[in-house]
Amino acid sequence: MDNGSIAGLPGTLAALGRALEGKSLSPVEVVRGLLDRIEERGGELNAFVTVTAEGALESAKRAEGEILAGRYRGPLHGAPVGVKDMILTRGVRTTMGSAFFEDHVPREDAAVVERLREAGSVVAGKTSTHEFAYGTTGDRSRFGPTRNPHDPARITGGSSSGSGAAVAAGLLYGSLGTDTGGSIRIPAALCGVAGMKPTFGRVSKRGVFPLAWTLDHVGPLTRTVEDNALLLNALAGHDPEDPYSAARQAEDFTRDLDRGIRGGVVGIPAGFYYERLESEVGARVAEAAEVFRSLGAGVREVEVPLLQEALDAQRLVLAAEAYAVHEERFLGEPEKFDEEVRERIRAGAEPRAYEYANARRTRLRSLRAFARVFEEVDALLAPTVPIAATEVAQREVIIGGEAVPVRAELNRLTGPTNLNGLPSLSVPCGLTAAGLPVGIQLIGRPFDEATLYRYGHAFERASS
Amino acid sequence: MDNGSIAGLPGTLAALGRALEGKSLSPVEVVRGLLDRIEERGGELNAFVTVTAEGALESAKRAEGEILAGRYRGPLHGAPVGVKDMILTRGVRTTMGSAFFEDHVPREDAAVVERLREAGSVVAGKTSTHEFAYGTTGDRSRFGPTRNPHDPARITGGSSSGSGAAVAAGLLYGSLGTDTGGSIRIPAALCGVAGMKPTFGRVSKRGVFPLAWTLDHVGPLTRTVEDNALLLNALAGHDPEDPYSAARQAEDFTRDLDRGIRGGVVGIPAGFYYERLESEVGARVAEAAEVFRSLGAGVREVEVPLLQEALDAQRLVLAAEAYAVHEERFLGEPEKFDEEVRERIRAGAEPRAYEYANARRTRLRSLRAFARVFEEVDALLAPTVPIAATEVAQREVIIGGEAVPVRAELNRLTGPTNLNGLPSLSVPCGLTAAGLPVGIQLIGRPFDEATLYRYGHAFERASS
Repeated sequence: MDNGSIAGLPGTLAALGRALEGKSLSPVEVVRGLLDRIEERGGELNAFVTVTAEGALESAKRAEGEILAGRYRGPLHGAPVGVKDMILTRGVRTTMGSAFFEDHVPREDAAVVERLREAGSVVAGKTSTHEFAYGTTGDRSRFGPTRNPHDPARITGGSSSGSGAAVAAGLLYGSLGTDTGGSIRIPAALCGVAGMKPTFGRVSKRGVFPLAWTLDHVGPLTRTVEDNALLLNALAGHDPEDPYSAARQAEDFTRDLDRGIRGGVVGIPAGFYYERLESEVGARVAEAAEVFRSLGAGVREVEVPLLQEALDAQRLVLAAEAYAVHEERFLGEPEKFDEEVRERIRAGAEPRAYEYANARRTRLRSLRAFARVFEEVDALLAPTVPIAATEVAQREVIIGGEAVPVRAELNRLTGPTNLNGLPSLSVPCGLTAAGLPVGIQLIGRPFDEATLYRYGHAFERASS
Repeated sequence: MDNGSIAGLPGTLAALGRALEGKSLSPVEVVRGLLDRIEERGGELNAFVTVTAEGALESAKRAEGEILAGRYRGPLHGAPVGVKDMILTRGVRTTMGSAFFEDHVPREDAAVVERLREAGSVVAGKTSTHEFAYGTTGDRSRFGPTRNPHDPARITGGSSSGSGAAVAAGLLYGSLGTDTGGSIRIPAALCGVAGMKPTFGRVSKRGVFPLAWTLDHVGPLTRTVEDNALLLNALAGHDPEDPYSAARQAEDFTRDLDRGIRGGVVGIPAGFYYERLESEVGARVAEAAEVFRSLGAGVREVEVPLLQEALDAQRLVLAAEAYAVHEERFLGEPEKFDEEVRERIRAGAEPRAYEYANARRTRLRSLRAFARVFEEVDALLAPTVPIAATEVAQREVIIGGEAVPVRAELNRLTGPTNLNGLPSLSVPCGLTAAGLPVGIQLIGRPFDEATLYRYGHAFERASS
């Protein structure tokens, strides 16, 4: 898990980019090196549904030719990345982790895949997903459970399970995930990588299979915060063909990385985010707060109201929209769903329209509540997930003597920002005694991902 | 119903403004004149819940003083207007037409009332509303049915029933209404006045009692199109305290009124909007199309898809949000509701969350469908209401040999633009043989009210 190198290759996307730009390394060597590692560990982790070795080598050769010809496109040029198998790839099977789509070969790339290709990056494969992205554990899929590189008996968290595992294991320099209740940040935290759920509307969802369209976000998982900002640079941007896409200008998310955080203010949202944590998670997050203090930031307790209401609303909206997405399949061929996923879809038909309407109002109230807090702080610091990775197929976990369902526990702290759409970055903050990663999440103002990257980068530098 | 004069006073807000600015008339004389007329006809029509004679005279005196002192504020200064009794007025009883609020005296003005007062206009009273604005007929309220000045045995249409009746009868120069499924445009059409439902977000709803918050709009009813633009000038503008308020600059909606429409294109959305019309309504609307042609505009049939879907979605969203608004009252004191309104509220608990979620998607699809049509036309021309005013308490109407419910018929053609939020202006287009008004609605691009006013004004000039 050393970011210094990956099997003799540079350990980060940023370092890789410098080596490729300087021609001290060829994209073809890089792809060959990673394909060997995928061959070695990919099976055990079950991180990939499809490895696109041939296409990746072809892209790498093209990138090599362009770089040699002096047409270097930027830091992603020639860099191997993965794409969650909920995101459509032209000519490459895209399964949603489901029997319904096991032979599905899209004719178009999703907008984010187009953007990756324009940046010159090399798509090395389709990473595993919880079936239809409808689960936080990552252990239910037509293609079996994904396993945690830190302990293959344990889950990666989901639903972007393969992206988390592959990046953590050094099989990829970065990977795209989707996040409807925490599905980027949960595997990032449990696998020990950086994961960004950008602001709702920041990244186009055209060509991404929906789970719940008013909560779905697309974003990157990477080995470092800087790498994450580099990937988001490529992904972000207005897409008139996505009705949820925000009309925002492109920006450089790496611009402030080295500015430091001295004089800034980190808010500790006591209560909701700090209740019912595994003790080692609580300890790692408390240590993280001290790191921010040591970097010259003020660290101050704040009260963020309406969090439980926001979580309840997020869950209701998710259930309802997922039912709407899957109704036809559910009524037509229910047996083709995983049984846990099927039961969740079935339950999504129950809530009433007026409850959904109220949940939408809660979204606005939650946005206003956060806005007031952000008048006083630059970022909020909270645990990403209250527990470390549980075992594959484990469905209950004991926290403080209380047995709670793993699935709901995993996204309890990430769900509220899916409802209100605020950006949230998960960054590793150390390990438990058993060697399992813990993550902090930094939550920011709408469209202020740059500040989260700045805080995350400063923290990562200071704590690694 | 002559716009030339109101009991010896100027017949329009525009003409009144000129007289007041020129000091040939005093605001106090105007208010006294209108209060006399209200005294005379207000009772029969039941257009007012509350007449604020004292406050109006006070405001008029203040306006008089300001004008004499050379501090003329603009065309609304000293002009008497009404405010629908769903819109809060500080210190003035605001009842929502309901027993729940019969003694309710708000401590704050709604944003639109603040804006009227800033413009110097004189609030002469609170106009009748269908109970909680939850009805298209205007004949169900704690305070009894409102009656049509063209035939007091007939309805005004609703829910802004009192605003329609008072403006049509020359008791006010203009009045504020609210519109969730047609509640400004329906009484405008049935009473023979101009009524604008502006673009969703154009006018603040702060301090307006909700019926269904994602469909609710506030707008003016007036005697002429020009008057309507003058009132919207005062009402429109961003309000950071209304989460649905759009961040738009102020503009002058009268700026293009006299530019004419030669070379423009009017679309006739065949199908949905032209099915099942009373024959006289169809005839008046066909004549209106000829007027537009005679003014030099192209008139062209166009196809607007998804209209029935949009109407169904609007009705589902309305039912669900109205239930959410009234749940506590409904469960606590159901007997205080009018029985028809109670039954509608009860039914609003039924629809499912996934249906509401789908309705929200239909909203986006409908917006895109209209956007494509507006690539080819400047405005759409349709009947506002498929029938003329029915009798008070009548619940079925025969159209083309088919008996249909009056309530649903009245808002069948106005509902789709409440879902998608497009601006729609109703303008009188003549009378039936029985002397009942018929209205056309002009539908435009988002935030392009100015074009609707230009077309409406040209039409009004040519047809009066």
